[in-house]
Amino acid sequence: MADAPTAPSVAPGTRATIGDSEFDRDTAVTRRESGVPGVYDIDLSADWTIMGAVNGGYLLAVLGRALADTLPHADPFSVSAHYLTASRPGPAVIRAELVRTGRTLSTGQASLFQYDEEGREVERIRVLASYGDLDALPEDVRTSAEPPAIPPIEKCFGAEDSPTPVLGGSGITERLLLKLDPATLGWALGSPSGKGEMRGWFGLADGREADPFSLLLAVDALPPTAFELGLSGWVPTIELTTHVRARPAPGPLRVSVTTRNLAGGFLEEDAEVWDSADRLVAQSRQLARVRLAEGA
Amino acid sequence: MADAPTAPSVAPGTRATIGDSEFDRDTAVTRRESGVPGVYDIDLSADWTIMGAVNGGYLLAVLGRALADTLPHADPFSVSAHYLTASRPGPAVIRAELVRTGRTLSTGQASLFQYDEEGREVERIRVLASYGDLDALPEDVRTSAEPPAIPPIEKCFGAEDSPTPVLGGSGITERLLLKLDPATLGWALGSPSGKGEMRGWFGLADGREADPFSLLLAVDALPPTAFELGLSGWVPTIELTTHVRARPAPGPLRVSVTTRNLAGGFLEEDAEVWDSADRLVAQSRQLARVRLAEGA
Repeated sequence: MADAPTAPSVAPGTRATIGDSEFDRDTAVTRRESGVPGVYDIDLSADWTIMGAVNGGYLLAVLGRALADTLPHADPFSVSAHYLTASRPGPAVIRAELVRTGRTLSTGQASLFQYDEEGREVERIRVLASYGDLDALPEDVRTSAEPPAIPPIEKCFGAEDSPTPVLGGSGITERLLLKLDPATLGWALGSPSGKGEMRGWFGLADGREADPFSLLLAVDALPPTAFELGLSGWVPTIELTTHVRARPAPGPLRVSVTTRNLAGGFLEEDAEVWDSADRLVAQSRQLARVRLAEGA
Repeated sequence: MADAPTAPSVAPGTRATIGDSEFDRDTAVTRRESGVPGVYDIDLSADWTIMGAVNGGYLLAVLGRALADTLPHADPFSVSAHYLTASRPGPAVIRAELVRTGRTLSTGQASLFQYDEEGREVERIRVLASYGDLDALPEDVRTSAEPPAIPPIEKCFGAEDSPTPVLGGSGITERLLLKLDPATLGWALGSPSGKGEMRGWFGLADGREADPFSLLLAVDALPPTAFELGLSGWVPTIELTTHVRARPAPGPLRVSVTTRNLAGGFLEEDAEVWDSADRLVAQSRQLARVRLAEGA
Protein backbone atom coordinates (compact mmCIF):
# COMPACT_ATOMS: atom_id res chain seq x y z
CA MET A 1 0.00 0.00 0.00
CA ALA A 2 2.98 2.29 0.41
CA ASP A 3 3.55 1.72 -3.26
CA ALA A 4 0.61 3.83 -4.35
CA PRO A 5 1.10 7.23 -2.71
CA THR A 6 -1.60 9.08 -4.56
CA ALA A 7 -3.77 10.56 -1.81
CA PRO A 8 -6.03 13.17 -3.44
CA SER A 9 -5.25 15.74 -0.73
CA VAL A 10 -1.71 16.12 -1.99
CA ALA A 11 -0.83 18.27 -4.96
CA PRO A 12 0.69 16.37 -7.88
CA GLY A 13 4.45 16.28 -7.76
CA THR A 14 4.80 16.84 -4.02
CA ARG A 15 5.04 13.15 -3.21
CA ALA A 16 7.88 10.99 -4.37
CA THR A 17 6.56 7.96 -6.18
CA ILE A 18 8.12 4.60 -5.55
CA GLY A 19 9.32 3.71 -9.00
CA ASP A 20 12.41 2.36 -10.63
CA SER A 21 15.07 4.50 -9.03
CA GLU A 22 18.14 2.81 -7.56
CA PHE A 23 16.76 3.24 -4.06
CA ASP A 24 13.31 1.92 -4.94
CA ARG A 25 14.66 -1.07 -6.82
CA ASP A 26 17.17 -2.00 -4.11
CA THR A 27 14.71 -1.65 -1.21
CA ALA A 28 11.91 -3.56 -2.94
CA VAL A 29 10.79 -6.61 -1.00
CA THR A 30 8.95 -9.55 -2.55
CA ARG A 31 6.08 -10.97 -0.57
CA ARG A 32 5.97 -14.74 -0.44
CA GLU A 33 2.55 -15.61 -1.76
CA SER A 34 2.40 -19.02 -0.20
CA GLY A 35 2.63 -19.95 3.42
CA VAL A 36 2.77 -17.64 6.42
CA PRO A 37 1.82 -14.01 5.78
CA GLY A 38 4.31 -11.21 6.39
CA VAL A 39 7.28 -13.02 4.88
CA TYR A 40 9.36 -11.14 2.30
CA ASP A 41 12.47 -11.91 0.31
CA ILE A 42 15.10 -9.45 -0.76
CA ASP A 43 18.59 -9.59 -2.17
CA LEU A 44 20.54 -7.00 -0.19
CA SER A 45 22.44 -4.96 -2.72
CA ALA A 46 26.20 -4.50 -2.51
CA ASP A 47 25.55 -1.01 -3.83
CA TRP A 48 24.57 0.20 -0.33
CA THR A 49 27.58 -1.05 1.58
CA ILE A 50 30.11 0.93 3.51
CA MET A 51 33.44 -0.82 3.99
CA GLY A 52 31.82 -4.15 3.18
CA ALA A 53 28.88 -3.91 5.59
CA VAL A 54 25.37 -3.10 4.50
CA ASN A 55 24.43 0.43 5.60
CA GLY A 56 22.11 0.54 8.59
CA GLY A 57 19.84 3.18 7.09
CA TYR A 58 19.37 1.15 3.92
CA LEU A 59 18.36 -1.82 6.08
CA LEU A 60 15.87 0.39 7.91
CA ALA A 61 14.35 1.44 4.60
CA VAL A 62 14.05 -2.20 3.51
CA LEU A 63 12.31 -3.17 6.76
CA GLY A 64 10.23 -0.01 6.53
CA ARG A 65 8.86 -1.03 3.14
CA ALA A 66 8.04 -4.54 4.34
CA LEU A 67 6.14 -3.07 7.30
CA ALA A 68 4.29 -0.63 5.04
CA ASP A 69 3.03 -3.65 3.14
CA THR A 70 2.09 -5.56 6.30
CA LEU A 71 0.43 -2.75 8.27
CA PRO A 72 -2.83 -0.92 7.49
CA HIS A 73 -0.97 2.42 7.53
CA ALA A 74 1.65 3.35 4.96
CA ASP A 75 3.96 5.89 6.60
CA PRO A 76 6.58 5.16 9.28
CA PHE A 77 6.07 7.50 12.27
CA SER A 78 8.45 5.92 14.77
CA VAL A 79 10.85 3.08 13.97
CA SER A 80 13.04 1.56 16.69
CA ALA A 81 15.76 -0.77 15.45
CA HIS A 82 18.14 -2.95 17.40
CA TYR A 83 21.11 -4.11 15.33
CA LEU A 84 22.09 -7.67 16.20
CA THR A 85 24.70 -8.82 13.70
CA ALA A 86 26.30 -7.20 10.65
CA SER A 87 24.38 -7.69 7.41
CA ARG A 88 26.15 -8.67 4.23
CA PRO A 89 25.11 -8.26 0.60
CA GLY A 90 23.01 -11.18 -0.58
CA PRO A 91 19.76 -12.97 0.10
CA ALA A 92 17.74 -12.08 3.18
CA VAL A 93 14.30 -12.87 4.48
CA ILE A 94 12.08 -10.49 6.42
CA ARG A 95 9.37 -11.63 8.80
CA ALA A 96 6.90 -8.87 9.62
CA GLU A 97 3.84 -8.96 11.83
CA LEU A 98 1.01 -6.65 12.75
CA VAL A 99 1.06 -6.04 16.50
CA ARG A 100 -1.87 -3.66 16.90
CA THR A 101 -4.23 -1.76 14.64
CA GLY A 102 -5.55 1.59 15.81
CA ARG A 103 -7.60 4.23 14.06
CA THR A 104 -4.74 6.61 13.38
CA LEU A 105 -1.69 4.51 14.20
CA SER A 106 -0.79 0.87 13.84
CA THR A 107 2.20 -0.93 15.29
CA GLY A 108 4.25 -3.72 13.79
CA GLN A 109 7.41 -5.67 14.23
CA ALA A 110 9.86 -6.99 11.67
CA SER A 111 13.12 -8.88 11.63
CA LEU A 112 15.63 -9.40 8.87
CA PHE A 113 17.51 -12.70 8.67
CA GLN A 114 20.37 -13.96 6.58
CA TYR A 115 21.96 -17.39 6.45
CA ASP A 116 25.13 -18.77 7.97
CA GLU A 117 27.42 -21.31 6.32
CA GLU A 118 25.16 -24.17 7.38
CA GLY A 119 22.13 -22.39 5.92
CA ARG A 120 20.69 -21.51 9.32
CA GLU A 121 18.89 -18.23 9.75
CA VAL A 122 20.81 -15.53 11.62
CA GLU A 123 18.87 -12.48 12.74
CA ARG A 124 20.50 -9.21 11.65
CA ILE A 125 18.17 -6.51 12.86
CA ARG A 126 14.83 -6.33 14.64
CA VAL A 127 12.48 -3.35 14.58
CA LEU A 128 9.37 -2.20 16.36
CA ALA A 129 7.51 0.50 14.48
CA SER A 130 4.41 2.65 14.62
CA TYR A 131 2.90 3.69 11.30
CA GLY A 132 0.29 6.28 10.39
CA ASP A 133 -0.74 8.62 7.60
CA LEU A 134 1.45 11.71 7.38
CA ASP A 135 -1.08 13.43 5.12
CA ALA A 136 -3.78 13.13 7.78
CA LEU A 137 -1.85 15.20 10.33
CA PRO A 138 -2.98 18.74 11.13
CA GLU A 139 -0.89 21.44 9.51
CA ASP A 140 0.16 23.13 12.75
CA VAL A 141 3.86 23.71 13.30
CA ARG A 142 4.93 25.30 16.57
CA THR A 143 8.52 24.24 16.52
CA SER A 144 11.34 26.09 18.20
CA ALA A 145 13.87 24.04 16.27
CA GLU A 146 15.85 25.87 13.61
CA PRO A 147 17.48 24.44 10.51
CA PRO A 148 21.21 23.80 10.80
CA ALA A 149 23.50 26.44 9.37
CA ILE A 150 25.10 24.69 6.42
CA PRO A 151 26.90 26.54 3.61
CA PRO A 152 25.34 26.41 0.12
CA ILE A 153 25.67 23.02 -1.49
CA GLU A 154 28.31 24.23 -3.94
CA LYS A 155 30.56 25.14 -1.00
CA CYS A 156 30.24 21.69 0.58
CA PHE A 157 32.26 18.61 -0.31
CA GLY A 158 31.57 15.00 -1.21
CA ALA A 159 33.65 11.89 -1.69
CA GLU A 160 33.93 12.76 -5.39
CA ASP A 161 35.77 15.96 -4.46
CA SER A 162 38.49 14.08 -2.60
CA PRO A 163 41.82 13.38 -4.31
CA THR A 164 42.02 10.08 -2.41
CA PRO A 165 39.19 7.60 -1.98
CA VAL A 166 37.25 8.33 1.21
CA LEU A 167 35.95 5.24 3.00
CA GLY A 168 37.34 3.22 0.12
CA GLY A 169 35.24 0.66 -1.64
CA SER A 170 31.94 1.97 -0.37
CA GLY A 171 29.21 1.44 -2.92
CA ILE A 172 26.87 3.73 -1.05
CA THR A 173 28.91 6.84 -1.82
CA GLU A 174 27.94 6.50 -5.48
CA ARG A 175 24.24 6.18 -4.65
CA LEU A 176 24.10 9.35 -2.58
CA LEU A 177 24.40 13.03 -3.21
CA LEU A 178 26.23 13.76 0.02
CA LYS A 179 27.95 17.12 0.42
CA LEU A 180 29.46 17.77 3.83
CA ASP A 181 29.87 21.11 5.55
CA PRO A 182 33.61 21.94 5.46
CA ALA A 183 33.34 22.83 9.16
CA THR A 184 32.77 19.14 9.91
CA LEU A 185 35.35 17.79 7.47
CA GLY A 186 38.47 18.24 9.59
CA TRP A 187 38.69 14.48 10.09
CA ALA A 188 39.20 13.96 6.35
CA LEU A 189 42.17 16.31 6.43
CA GLY A 190 43.73 14.84 9.56
CA SER A 191 42.51 17.67 11.80
CA PRO A 192 39.30 16.64 13.50
CA SER A 193 37.55 19.55 15.19
CA GLY A 194 37.02 17.73 18.47
CA LYS A 195 33.33 18.59 18.27
CA GLY A 196 30.75 15.85 17.88
CA GLU A 197 29.15 17.35 14.79
CA MET A 198 28.56 16.25 11.22
CA ARG A 199 26.43 18.21 8.77
CA GLY A 200 25.66 18.11 5.14
CA TRP A 201 23.32 18.06 2.18
CA PHE A 202 21.71 14.75 1.38
CA GLY A 203 19.95 13.40 -1.67
CA LEU A 204 19.84 10.38 -3.90
CA ALA A 205 22.37 10.53 -6.72
CA ASP A 206 19.87 9.58 -9.43
CA GLY A 207 17.58 12.46 -8.51
CA ARG A 208 14.87 10.42 -6.84
CA GLU A 209 13.05 12.75 -4.46
CA ALA A 210 12.87 12.17 -0.71
CA ASP A 211 10.02 10.27 0.92
CA PRO A 212 9.57 8.75 4.38
CA PHE A 213 11.58 5.68 3.41
CA SER A 214 14.55 7.64 2.17
CA LEU A 215 14.45 9.61 5.43
CA LEU A 216 15.19 6.30 7.17
CA LEU A 217 18.29 6.16 5.00
CA ALA A 218 19.20 9.82 5.55
CA VAL A 219 19.48 9.56 9.34
CA ASP A 220 22.34 7.06 9.10
CA ALA A 221 24.12 8.21 5.96
CA LEU A 222 26.71 10.72 7.17
CA PRO A 223 30.18 9.73 8.40
CA PRO A 224 30.26 9.05 12.15
CA THR A 225 30.57 12.08 14.41
CA ALA A 226 33.26 10.02 16.14
CA PHE A 227 35.60 10.95 13.28
CA GLU A 228 35.38 14.61 14.27
CA LEU A 229 35.98 13.56 17.89
CA GLY A 230 39.34 12.17 16.79
CA LEU A 231 38.35 8.54 16.80
CA SER A 232 38.74 6.20 13.88
CA GLY A 233 37.41 2.82 12.92
CA TRP A 234 34.05 1.23 12.92
CA VAL A 235 31.21 2.74 14.98
CA PRO A 236 28.60 -0.01 15.06
CA THR A 237 25.03 1.01 15.80
CA ILE A 238 23.44 -0.76 18.76
CA GLU A 239 20.05 0.92 18.55
CA LEU A 240 18.54 3.53 16.25
CA THR A 241 15.13 5.12 16.59
CA THR A 242 13.77 7.44 13.92
CA HIS A 243 10.72 9.66 14.10
CA VAL A 244 9.35 10.82 10.77
CA ARG A 245 7.61 14.09 11.53
CA ALA A 246 6.42 15.25 8.11
CA ARG A 247 6.46 14.21 4.47
CA PRO A 248 9.51 15.87 2.91
CA ALA A 249 9.13 18.50 0.20
CA PRO A 250 11.03 17.95 -3.05
CA GLY A 251 14.63 19.08 -3.15
CA PRO A 252 17.80 18.25 -1.25
CA LEU A 253 17.67 17.59 2.48
CA ARG A 254 19.90 19.00 5.16
CA VAL A 255 21.10 16.57 7.80
CA SER A 256 22.72 17.54 11.07
CA VAL A 257 24.15 14.94 13.45
CA THR A 258 25.29 15.81 16.95
CA THR A 259 27.02 13.85 19.70
CA ARG A 260 27.16 15.29 23.19
CA ASN A 261 27.98 12.34 25.37
CA LEU A 262 30.94 10.09 24.54
CA ALA A 263 31.43 7.99 27.65
CA GLY A 264 32.13 4.41 28.63
CA GLY A 265 32.87 3.41 25.05
CA PHE A 266 29.47 4.47 23.75
CA LEU A 267 28.07 7.61 22.20
CA GLU A 268 24.72 8.85 21.00
CA GLU A 269 24.17 10.36 17.56
CA ASP A 270 21.20 12.70 17.30
CA ALA A 271 20.22 13.39 13.69
CA GLU A 272 17.84 15.98 12.35
CA VAL A 273 16.68 16.05 8.76
CA TRP A 274 15.30 19.25 7.28
CA ASP A 275 13.60 19.62 3.92
CA SER A 276 13.76 22.40 1.34
CA ALA A 277 10.71 24.02 2.93
CA ASP A 278 12.65 24.42 6.20
CA ARG A 279 10.58 21.80 7.92
CA LEU A 280 12.02 19.34 10.41
CA VAL A 281 10.97 16.11 8.69
CA ALA A 282 12.82 13.52 10.77
CA GLN A 283 14.58 13.18 14.10
CA SER A 284 16.64 10.20 15.14
CA ARG A 285 18.90 9.06 17.91
CA GLN A 286 21.24 6.12 17.89
CA LEU A 287 23.42 4.51 20.51
CA ALA A 288 26.69 3.36 18.99
CA ARG A 289 29.83 1.76 20.25
CA VAL A 290 33.24 3.32 19.67
CA ARG A 291 36.78 2.11 19.88
CA LEU A 292 38.69 4.42 22.16
CA ALA A 293 42.08 4.28 20.43
CA GLU A 294 42.89 7.74 19.12
CA GLY A 295 42.74 8.35 15.41
CA ALA A 296 45.25 10.26 13.34
CA MET B 1 20.43 -11.81 38.26
CA ALA B 2 19.72 -8.10 38.46
CA ASP B 3 18.62 -8.82 42.00
CA ALA B 4 22.14 -9.44 43.25
CA PRO B 5 24.13 -6.35 42.27
CA THR B 6 27.24 -7.06 44.29
CA ALA B 7 30.04 -6.91 41.74
CA PRO B 8 33.30 -6.76 43.71
CA SER B 9 34.64 -3.92 41.55
CA VAL B 10 32.14 -1.52 43.10
CA ALA B 11 32.69 0.04 46.50
CA PRO B 12 30.06 -0.88 49.10
CA GLY B 13 27.21 1.54 49.20
CA THR B 14 27.63 2.88 45.69
CA ARG B 15 25.08 0.51 44.20
CA ALA B 16 21.45 0.58 45.12
CA THR B 17 20.33 -2.83 46.26
CA ILE B 18 16.99 -4.15 45.12
CA GLY B 19 15.27 -4.66 48.43
CA ASP B 20 11.92 -3.89 49.97
CA SER B 21 11.47 -0.27 48.97
CA GLU B 22 8.16 0.80 47.44
CA PHE B 23 9.72 0.82 44.00
CA ASP B 24 11.38 -2.57 44.40
CA ARG B 25 8.25 -4.19 45.76
CA ASP B 26 5.97 -2.73 43.11
CA THR B 27 8.23 -3.56 40.16
CA ALA B 28 8.96 -7.12 41.31
CA VAL B 29 7.92 -9.73 38.77
CA THR B 30 7.26 -13.36 39.61
CA ARG B 31 8.60 -15.92 37.22
CA ARG B 32 6.22 -18.74 36.40
CA GLU B 33 8.10 -21.87 37.28
CA SER B 34 6.05 -24.17 35.12
CA GLY B 35 5.51 -24.05 31.39
CA VAL B 36 7.16 -21.71 28.92
CA PRO B 37 10.23 -19.81 30.14
CA GLY B 38 10.26 -16.01 30.24
CA VAL B 39 6.74 -15.65 31.59
CA TYR B 40 6.25 -13.38 34.61
CA ASP B 41 3.27 -12.27 36.65
CA ILE B 42 2.83 -8.91 38.32
CA ASP B 43 0.02 -6.99 39.92
CA LEU B 44 0.41 -3.45 38.58
CA SER B 45 0.15 -1.18 41.58
CA ALA B 46 -2.36 1.69 41.72
CA ASP B 47 0.36 3.56 43.62
CA TRP B 48 2.12 4.43 40.34
CA THR B 49 -0.83 5.85 38.45
CA ILE B 50 -1.29 9.32 37.10
CA MET B 51 -4.90 10.34 36.57
CA GLY B 52 -5.94 6.68 36.61
CA ALA B 53 -3.41 5.37 34.09
CA VAL B 54 -0.31 3.45 35.05
CA ASN B 55 2.78 5.60 34.56
CA GLY B 56 4.82 4.70 31.48
CA GLY B 57 8.15 4.86 33.28
CA TYR B 58 6.94 2.49 35.98
CA LEU B 59 5.91 0.05 33.23
CA LEU B 60 9.36 0.36 31.68
CA ALA B 61 10.96 -0.50 35.01
CA VAL B 62 8.69 -3.54 35.39
CA LEU B 63 9.59 -4.79 31.92
CA GLY B 64 13.21 -3.90 32.57
CA ARG B 65 13.32 -6.16 35.59
CA ALA B 66 11.72 -9.04 33.71
CA LEU B 67 14.32 -8.68 30.95
CA ALA B 68 17.16 -8.54 33.49
CA ASP B 69 15.97 -11.92 34.71
CA THR B 70 15.64 -13.36 31.19
CA LEU B 71 18.88 -12.04 29.67
CA PRO B 72 22.45 -13.00 30.52
CA HIS B 73 23.26 -9.33 31.22
CA ALA B 74 21.75 -7.39 34.11
CA ASP B 75 21.81 -3.70 33.13
CA PRO B 76 19.56 -2.03 30.55
CA PHE B 77 21.68 -0.12 28.02
CA SER B 78 19.03 0.77 25.45
CA VAL B 79 15.31 0.13 25.88
CA SER B 80 12.85 0.95 23.08
CA ALA B 81 9.19 0.81 24.07
CA HIS B 82 6.10 1.16 21.92
CA TYR B 83 2.98 1.88 23.95
CA LEU B 84 -0.03 0.09 22.51
CA THR B 85 -2.94 0.51 24.93
CA ALA B 86 -3.28 2.20 28.33
CA SER B 87 -2.38 -0.03 31.28
CA ARG B 88 -4.62 -0.15 34.35
CA PRO B 89 -3.79 -1.22 37.90
CA GLY B 90 -4.23 -4.94 38.39
CA PRO B 91 -2.91 -8.26 37.17
CA ALA B 92 -0.60 -8.39 34.16
CA VAL B 93 1.56 -10.98 32.50
CA ILE B 94 4.92 -10.36 30.87
CA ARG B 95 6.37 -12.53 28.15
CA ALA B 96 10.09 -12.00 27.68
CA GLU B 97 12.48 -13.66 25.26
CA LEU B 98 16.17 -13.68 24.60
CA VAL B 99 16.82 -12.52 21.03
CA ARG B 100 20.59 -12.65 20.90
CA THR B 101 23.47 -13.23 23.28
CA GLY B 102 26.73 -11.44 22.66
CA ARG B 103 29.89 -11.19 24.70
CA THR B 104 29.27 -7.68 26.02
CA LEU B 105 25.65 -7.07 25.04
CA SER B 106 22.55 -9.18 24.80
CA THR B 107 19.23 -8.27 23.25
CA GLY B 108 15.76 -9.22 24.35
CA GLN B 109 12.13 -8.49 23.78
CA ALA B 110 9.25 -8.30 26.22
CA SER B 111 5.56 -7.55 26.13
CA LEU B 112 3.14 -6.77 28.93
CA PHE B 113 -0.45 -7.98 28.65
CA GLN B 114 -3.57 -7.40 30.67
CA TYR B 115 -7.03 -8.87 30.27
CA ASP B 116 -10.21 -7.53 28.75
CA GLU B 117 -13.70 -8.15 30.09
CA GLU B 118 -13.82 -11.52 28.38
CA GLY B 119 -10.49 -12.49 29.92
CA ARG B 120 -8.61 -12.18 26.63
CA GLU B 121 -5.06 -10.91 26.68
CA VAL B 122 -4.59 -7.32 25.48
CA GLU B 123 -1.06 -6.17 24.79
CA ARG B 124 -0.18 -2.91 26.58
CA ILE B 125 3.43 -2.27 25.72
CA ARG B 126 6.18 -4.00 23.77
CA VAL B 127 9.89 -3.38 24.22
CA LEU B 128 13.11 -4.27 22.46
CA ALA B 129 16.15 -3.86 24.67
CA SER B 130 19.89 -4.33 24.72
CA TYR B 131 21.49 -5.16 28.05
CA GLY B 132 25.07 -5.15 29.25
CA ASP B 133 27.19 -4.64 32.34
CA LEU B 134 27.58 -0.98 33.27
CA ASP B 135 30.45 -1.80 35.62
CA ALA B 136 32.45 -3.32 32.78
CA LEU B 137 32.56 -0.08 30.79
CA PRO B 138 35.78 1.91 30.58
CA GLU B 139 35.87 4.97 32.80
CA ASP B 140 36.42 7.47 30.01
CA VAL B 141 34.06 10.44 29.84
CA ARG B 142 34.56 12.90 27.00
CA THR B 143 31.15 14.49 27.11
CA SER B 144 30.39 18.00 26.00
CA ALA B 145 27.00 17.83 27.69
CA GLU B 146 26.54 19.98 30.77
CA PRO B 147 24.17 19.44 33.68
CA PRO B 148 20.97 21.48 33.54
CA ALA B 149 20.88 24.68 35.58
CA ILE B 150 18.33 23.92 38.27
CA PRO B 151 18.01 25.93 41.50
CA PRO B 152 18.83 24.17 44.77
CA ILE B 153 16.24 21.61 45.75
CA GLU B 154 14.88 23.80 48.57
CA LYS B 155 14.01 26.46 46.00
CA CYS B 156 12.09 24.03 43.81
CA PHE B 157 8.48 22.95 44.25
CA GLY B 158 6.57 19.69 44.41
CA ALA B 159 2.92 18.68 44.45
CA GLU B 160 3.02 18.85 48.25
CA ASP B 161 3.82 22.56 48.04
CA SER B 162 0.65 23.32 46.07
CA PRO B 163 -2.41 24.70 47.84
CA THR B 164 -4.63 22.75 45.43
CA PRO B 165 -4.09 19.16 44.33
CA VAL B 166 -1.94 19.00 41.22
CA LEU B 167 -2.90 16.23 38.79
CA GLY B 168 -5.45 15.11 41.36
CA GLY B 169 -5.69 11.54 42.43
CA SER B 170 -2.26 10.57 41.22
CA GLY B 171 -0.73 7.93 43.45
CA ILE B 172 2.66 8.41 41.87
CA THR B 173 3.14 11.88 43.33
CA GLU B 174 3.41 10.32 46.79
CA ARG B 175 6.01 7.80 45.65
CA LEU B 176 8.35 10.40 44.20
CA LEU B 177 10.50 13.16 45.51
CA LEU B 178 9.84 15.50 42.61
CA LYS B 179 10.78 19.16 42.95
CA LEU B 180 10.33 21.26 39.85
CA ASP B 181 12.34 24.26 38.79
CA PRO B 182 10.06 27.32 39.30
CA ALA B 183 11.11 28.49 35.81
CA THR B 184 9.17 25.55 34.37
CA LEU B 185 6.18 25.81 36.70
CA GLY B 186 4.28 28.57 34.92
CA TRP B 187 1.66 26.07 33.75
CA ALA B 188 0.68 25.32 37.37
CA LEU B 189 0.00 29.02 37.91
CA GLY B 190 -1.91 29.53 34.68
CA SER B 191 1.02 31.23 32.92
CA PRO B 192 2.86 28.67 30.84
CA SER B 193 6.20 29.96 29.60
CA GLY B 194 5.65 28.90 26.01
CA LYS B 195 8.96 27.05 26.10
CA GLY B 196 9.06 23.29 25.80
CA GLU B 197 11.05 22.75 28.98
CA MET B 198 10.52 20.90 32.24
CA ARG B 199 13.25 20.49 34.84
CA GLY B 200 13.48 19.24 38.36
CA TRP B 201 15.01 17.11 41.08
CA PHE B 202 13.97 13.48 41.13
CA GLY B 203 14.19 10.80 43.77
CA LEU B 204 12.12 8.10 45.39
CA ALA B 205 10.14 9.36 48.36
CA ASP B 206 11.21 6.53 50.64
CA GLY B 207 14.88 7.29 50.11
CA ARG B 208 15.68 4.32 47.91
CA GLU B 209 18.75 5.25 45.87
CA ALA B 210 18.75 5.40 42.07
CA ASP B 211 19.75 2.44 39.94
CA PRO B 212 19.34 1.66 36.22
CA PHE B 213 15.73 0.57 36.74
CA SER B 214 14.72 3.73 38.54
CA LEU B 215 16.32 5.69 35.69
CA LEU B 216 13.70 4.09 33.44
CA LEU B 217 11.13 5.64 35.75
CA ALA B 218 12.89 9.01 35.96
CA VAL B 219 12.79 9.69 32.22
CA ASP B 220 8.97 9.70 32.19
CA ALA B 221 8.18 11.16 35.61
CA LEU B 222 7.97 14.91 35.07
CA PRO B 223 4.80 16.69 33.91
CA PRO B 224 4.56 16.94 30.13
CA THR B 225 6.49 19.76 28.50
CA ALA B 226 3.23 20.36 26.61
CA PHE B 227 1.89 22.04 29.74
CA GLU B 228 4.54 24.76 29.43
CA LEU B 229 3.64 25.05 25.74
CA GLY B 230 0.14 26.05 26.80
CA LEU B 231 -1.52 22.74 26.04
CA SER B 232 -3.54 20.76 28.52
CA GLY B 233 -4.84 17.23 28.76
CA TRP B 234 -3.35 13.85 28.20
CA VAL B 235 -0.09 13.47 26.25
CA PRO B 236 0.05 9.77 25.48
CA THR B 237 3.44 8.29 24.69
CA ILE B 238 3.68 6.49 21.36
CA GLU B 239 7.31 5.43 21.63
CA LEU B 240 10.00 5.95 24.26
CA THR B 241 13.63 4.92 23.98
CA THR B 242 15.98 5.23 26.93
CA HIS B 243 19.75 4.86 26.94
CA VAL B 244 21.30 4.20 30.32
CA ARG B 245 24.82 5.57 30.07
CA ALA B 246 26.24 5.01 33.55
CA ARG B 247 25.27 3.62 36.93
CA PRO B 248 23.97 6.55 38.98
CA ALA B 249 25.80 7.71 42.10
CA PRO B 250 23.77 7.98 45.31
CA GLY B 251 21.82 11.16 45.87
CA PRO B 252 19.02 12.98 44.08
CA LEU B 253 18.94 13.09 40.30
CA ARG B 254 18.39 16.11 38.07
CA VAL B 255 16.07 15.60 35.13
CA SER B 256 15.72 17.97 32.22
CA VAL B 257 13.11 17.46 29.50
CA THR B 258 13.08 19.48 26.30
CA THR B 259 10.69 19.68 23.37
CA ARG B 260 11.77 21.47 20.23
CA ASN B 261 9.37 20.27 17.59
CA LEU B 262 5.62 20.43 18.21
CA ALA B 263 4.07 19.77 14.81
CA GLY B 264 1.26 17.81 13.26
CA GLY B 265 -0.20 16.91 16.63
CA PHE B 266 2.96 15.20 17.85
CA LEU B 267 5.96 16.28 19.85
CA GLU B 268 9.21 14.75 21.02
CA GLU B 269 10.37 14.88 24.63
CA ASP B 270 14.11 14.59 25.12
CA ALA B 271 15.05 13.77 28.70
CA GLU B 272 18.46 13.85 30.32
CA VAL B 273 19.12 12.48 33.77
CA TRP B 274 22.17 13.64 35.73
CA ASP B 275 23.43 12.17 38.97
CA SER B 276 24.97 13.84 42.02
CA ALA B 277 28.43 13.30 40.55
CA ASP B 278 27.47 15.48 37.54
CA ARG B 279 27.42 12.50 35.23
CA LEU B 280 24.89 12.11 32.43
CA VAL B 281 23.43 8.76 33.45
CA ALA B 282 20.48 8.47 31.06
CA GLN B 283 19.17 9.98 27.85
CA SER B 284 15.74 9.35 26.45
CA ARG B 285 13.48 10.51 23.67
CA GLN B 286 9.80 9.89 23.33
CA LEU B 287 7.28 10.63 20.61
CA ALA B 288 3.97 11.69 22.11
CA ARG B 289 0.65 12.83 20.80
CA VAL B 290 -0.91 16.10 21.89
CA ARG B 291 -4.35 17.59 21.70
CA LEU B 292 -4.08 20.93 20.03
CA ALA B 293 -6.86 22.72 21.93
CA GLU B 294 -5.31 25.57 23.90
CA GLY B 295 -5.02 25.21 27.65
CA ALA B 296 -5.82 27.84 30.24
